[in-house]
Amino acid sequence: MRIAILGGTGDIGEGLALRIAADTDHTVVIGSREAEKGVDAATEYESSLAARGIDASFTGCANADAVTDADVVILAVPPYYVGDTVDSIADQLGEEQIVVSPAVGMRGDEDGLHYHPPDVGSVTELIAERVSEDITVTGAFHNLSAGRLADLDIVLDIDTLVVGDDDDAKATVIALANEIDGLRALDAGPLANAPEVESVTPLVINIAKNNADLEHVGVKFQ
Amino acid sequence: MRIAILGGTGDIGEGLALRIAADTDHTVVIGSREAEKGVDAATEYESSLAARGIDASFTGCANADAVTDADVVILAVPPYYVGDTVDSIADQLGEEQIVVSPAVGMRGDEDGLHYHPPDVGSVTELIAERVSEDITVTGAFHNLSAGRLADLDIVLDIDTLVVGDDDDAKATVIALANEIDGLRALDAGPLANAPEVESVTPLVINIAKNNADLEHVGVKFQ
Repeated sequence: MRIAILGGTGDIGEGLALRIAADTDHTVVIGSREAEKGVDAATEYESSLAARGIDASFTGCANADAVTDADVVILAVPPYYVGDTVDSIADQLGEEQIVVSPAVGMRGDEDGLHYHPPDVGSVTELIAERVSEDITVTGAFHNLSAGRLADLDIVLDIDTLVVGDDDDAKATVIALANEIDGLRALDAGPLANAPEVESVTPLVINIAKNNADLEHVGVKFQ
Repeated sequence: MRIAILGGTGDIGEGLALRIAADTDHTVVIGSREAEKGVDAATEYESSLAARGIDASFTGCANADAVTDADVVILAVPPYYVGDTVDSIADQLGEEQIVVSPAVGMRGDEDGLHYHPPDVGSVTELIAERVSEDITVTGAFHNLSAGRLADLDIVLDIDTLVVGDDDDAKATVIALANEIDGLRALDAGPLANAPEVESVTPLVINIAKNNADLEHVGVKFQ
């Protein structure tokens, strides 16, 4: 498959790009708000993997161009850019493409981070509202530590939760996630279950803050 | 310590009673809305542990009586009884006692279970509002599968998350939870972080529903 990672220059984008390129046969396209940054990141990721003896090739470009011909479009952008990013690619998206949302709305105070979803219930559902009805949206890759994801020396050994209303699209995303070594994808049900999935992200950050030796903590359901 | 489990005849109460009695030296008191049910459950739990060669003694009584002289009071009652239960024991509670809340507000629809907290943010914070200011309230034991907890043949190997504003009380509850074999307690921060902790409960139920072989699933942060 052709996997477009929008916001592929960010920390979660970098981790997903490196892991997908290293562990699977899929083609990875790095999208960025500025094409040049996408190109630079692609070169950087190639060098990073080459240094590990992994021969991988990335394409870097602007977000809207990355969407072209992609089978899966991962919106690895901060939550406050998600709306704009979706609007900027809405015309390019076709019904055969699967949009994947890992973004989570949070707010912080002295106690820690708290889940702060949009009125529609979750960022994942917000995206589903903003794209055309024939575009399938799934939520996945929400609560992965960027530092753990991007450091290929670390064995992941964690789960990611996938939500979506289209069973075929969800199965595709689950299969993609399961191809990443050490990552296990679990089905968390329909899009309406996204809030409980997204709210694990502030939780793991609070746990990392309050407990020793859990800096890059992830979650495993067992 | 003397541990009062209010609603100790319910499924989570039973599991906590059996595990605490089996794995620790603490005294367990089974409270119920009806004293007779508490007494019956105490006898039943003693038999159940005796059949496993464990000599344990439980006291059964009404919820309000269970609170007397308890060091820790666990409110193992369904969320819709939590308010009434707290009101019924409010006069008995003293400032040296630690109240522990495992209850979670949820609502279900065709998609699954969803987190449905009270307006104050969480059941844990609701309880803190309803007791006197000098009573310390912590949240713990929220997302444990009742079936897994009550079946002592199952090795737990899961985490429980503890929230609270009083560090000493939180440390006491964390230590108590860690005494249960296979259970690890993590500090999830102040009471204000309870919503993210409580919302793991509908999440694990949704995961159990949508994935094979995860019927009694729990969560581990690693």
